[in-house]
Amino acid sequence: MNTGRLETFADGVFAIAATLLILTVDGHFGSCAPAGATLAHQLVCSWPSYVAYVVSFLTIGIIWVNHHTVMNQIDHADRTFLMITVGFLMIVAFIPFPTRLVAENIKGDGARAATVAYGVTLTLTAALFNAVWFYAARGGRLLRPDADPKIVRGISKTFVFGPWIYVALTLIAAVEPVLGAIGFGLFALFWVIESSVFGRDRSHRSSPR
Amino acid sequence: MNTGRLETFADGVFAIAATLLILTVDGHFGSCAPAGATLAHQLVCSWPSYVAYVVSFLTIGIIWVNHHTVMNQIDHADRTFLMITVGFLMIVAFIPFPTRLVAENIKGDGARAATVAYGVTLTLTAALFNAVWFYAARGGRLLRPDADPKIVRGISKTFVFGPWIYVALTLIAAVEPVLGAIGFGLFALFWVIESSVFGRDRSHRSSPR
Amino acid sequence: MNTGRLETFADGVFAIAATLLILTVDGHFGSCAPAGATLAHQLVCSWPSYVAYVVSFLTIGIIWVNHHTVMNQIDHADRTFLMITVGFLMIVAFIPFPTRLVAENIKGDGARAATVAYGVTLTLTAALFNAVWFYAARGGRLLRPDADPKIVRGISKTFVFGPWIYVALTLIAAVEPVLGAIGFGLFALFWVIESSVFGRDRSHRSSPR
Amino acid sequence: MNTGRLETFADGVFAIAATLLILTVDGHFGSCAPAGATLAHQLVCSWPSYVAYVVSFLTIGIIWVNHHTVMNQIDHADRTFLMITVGFLMIVAFIPFPTRLVAENIKGDGARAATVAYGVTLTLTAALFNAVWFYAARGGRLLRPDADPKIVRGISKTFVFGPWIYVALTLIAAVEPVLGAIGFGLFALFWVIESSVFGRDRSHRSSPR
Repeated sequence: MNTGRLETFADGVFAIAATLLILTVDGHFGSCAPAGATLAHQLVCSWPSYVAYVVSFLTIGIIWVNHHTVMNQIDHADRTFLMITVGFLMIVAFIPFPTRLVAENIKGDGARAATVAYGVTLTLTAALFNAVWFYAARGGRLLRPDADPKIVRGISKTFVFGPWIYVALTLIAAVEPVLGAIGFGLFALFWVIESSVFGRDRSHRSSPR
Repeated sequence: MNTGRLETFADGVFAIAATLLILTVDGHFGSCAPAGATLAHQLVCSWPSYVAYVVSFLTIGIIWVNHHTVMNQIDHADRTFLMITVGFLMIVAFIPFPTRLVAENIKGDGARAATVAYGVTLTLTAALFNAVWFYAARGGRLLRPDADPKIVRGISKTFVFGPWIYVALTLIAAVEPVLGAIGFGLFALFWVIESSVFGRDRSHRSSPR
Repeated sequence: MNTGRLETFADGVFAIAATLLILTVDGHFGSCAPAGATLAHQLVCSWPSYVAYVVSFLTIGIIWVNHHTVMNQIDHADRTFLMITVGFLMIVAFIPFPTRLVAENIKGDGARAATVAYGVTLTLTAALFNAVWFYAARGGRLLRPDADPKIVRGISKTFVFGPWIYVALTLIAAVEPVLGAIGFGLFALFWVIESSVFGRDRSHRSSPR
Repeated sequence: MNTGRLETFADGVFAIAATLLILTVDGHFGSCAPAGATLAHQLVCSWPSYVAYVVSFLTIGIIWVNHHTVMNQIDHADRTFLMITVGFLMIVAFIPFPTRLVAENIKGDGARAATVAYGVTLTLTAALFNAVWFYAARGGRLLRPDADPKIVRGISKTFVFGPWIYVALTLIAAVEPVLGAIGFGLFALFWVIESSVFGRDRSHRSSPR
């Protein structure tokens, strides 16, 4: 079983989940302003929606980039791998929901519940992404015969930390919701920069292949 | 006519239908709680939405995995096959609607109508998936010249039961809605496990080709 | 410029427009029943939504199948062709909106306006599909060197009627909305059958290529 | 890293963002008419929604056509390029939101805020599209070895103006909202014509390659 259709399906889910995030911004636009407020006022007070949109879009974008990297090392798929991937995509497609919760509640009473829900979702995402990778990589089960061991080890080392960092951020959110939310944003930003700056180096080093 | 664009279109519908399920969770979130309830309370009482999301996402995921398996045996498409596939996808894209009905009504008066509507939709899905397969497989009409007869027979034997099991679960739902709903969930879970554990074996046995 | 990405984009729009039709069913579900009606009652009185869903899904499905047939004859794309295709897809993506209008208003005062809006949309769809085809086919501009002249002539002959039939159905809808709606349904059904039965013949005859 | 999956993901986001625009038309349909107005009346007074739909769909369509042109010159991607593309797609996927704001407010008090929000979004879109292109083109970093220098220079020359024109139109919108909105429409129309008429010439001239 080659991986072409798996990538089409996964890219479809990534693209749709990311694009549906705009409904997060759109859905309850204006509810932050008192009745009769000007549109300009509503646009300004909705800033948490924009931030939540950016953080979740970047998070899904990073997941997509990393999935790209992972699939480059994979030669073929079996049905177990497909089902684990379906579970993983199920959690990715769930991200727009807690994103909206955070956007709407970060300034109010529900901030704790919203950021914890967000953190639990991202923890599960990271855990299932680990399951996808380690199922494929264990004993080289689904890897390309010519997979670069250095890249394989690099992915394994990076991935294994993900869920624990999200667990830590979720615990922080349970105590200080706003701090947790900032943490989620900074962690996404870290990945963007890591991917761009260090990733450039890394792909440079591996350019001979 | 090769099957490339058919798979792109089908994967698109599968991915979108699955991802739109999140609107099931999002759409009426909070309606389970009394006015003024905390967000944490709303998150807890919405559990049927999450279960419905998981069951329907896994169901669409299994359909996608099986469509993958089916298309691997198919060499080319004719226009009749494309139209049958359109009908099949039409029912798959319908799944988010009864999913929402079940999520919202399973604890109330509408449980029977909602679970029966869900069951009818899945019965039709299974029936049309059979039509897709048997139209292609009858007399080897659209199969690859080198399609493995054992796999072809295996698909035919597995598929033929699907609609009847959904008919049975729908009848159970008509009598005991909650029992029917549990049945839909268990059947999805059975397929996930069957695909993963037995499927692994099966792809193992057929790995030489 | 090859046509691969064009087909991916078009298939994406077809798949999303078709799948979004479910929001037609979902959006105003229950508004047909008096307050306090049972879910079963709401499910029954919503039948126009299901019919509208089926007719529009099949219509988009047929457009997809025909686009498939058209693109099989096309070798490459230029920028004008891409822009005409964008215009064509713009109208296809519009179809869910008049579909909802018909579903909600066919039993009430707005039946005439709704069915006329539906007819105008489908007339424009057919007209722009003609523009896509004839731009590519005129003088063989974008056709494959080995395009079958019989198939090319066949497409041209079939396409040229489409807009006029939709104009006629729209005029009927302006006088007798329900009759017009039935006409849209029958015309979709005619295409499904024509595609399946005659299409099978046709692809049979052309199988040597 | 080849560019296949990048294009699938980008085409997915373009297709979904464009298709979601229909929710712009659908979402608040009828709110322009007084209570009890006929459907025909509502259809007529909603004209700004249709115009906004057309302008934004064409804008996304042009971006897609241009992305097509750009990617034709690009040989491979690195992780920085993927992340810049994710940022670019994030803004494209945002377009449906200010589109709805313009459609709903162009006739009222919020016209200024809505058209400025629209202009800022399109300015950012153009700026990030520039970032995508110049990151790839600088020193030929990601270009195909056989990229046509004339086409590369042509893209660079055309792209560099985009953000400034959107800045200018946004400033106009801040003073005269309706004039700004007309400007956005005319600019989209200009691109459609430029792409179609001049583009035809250009692809003609470059047909030998």
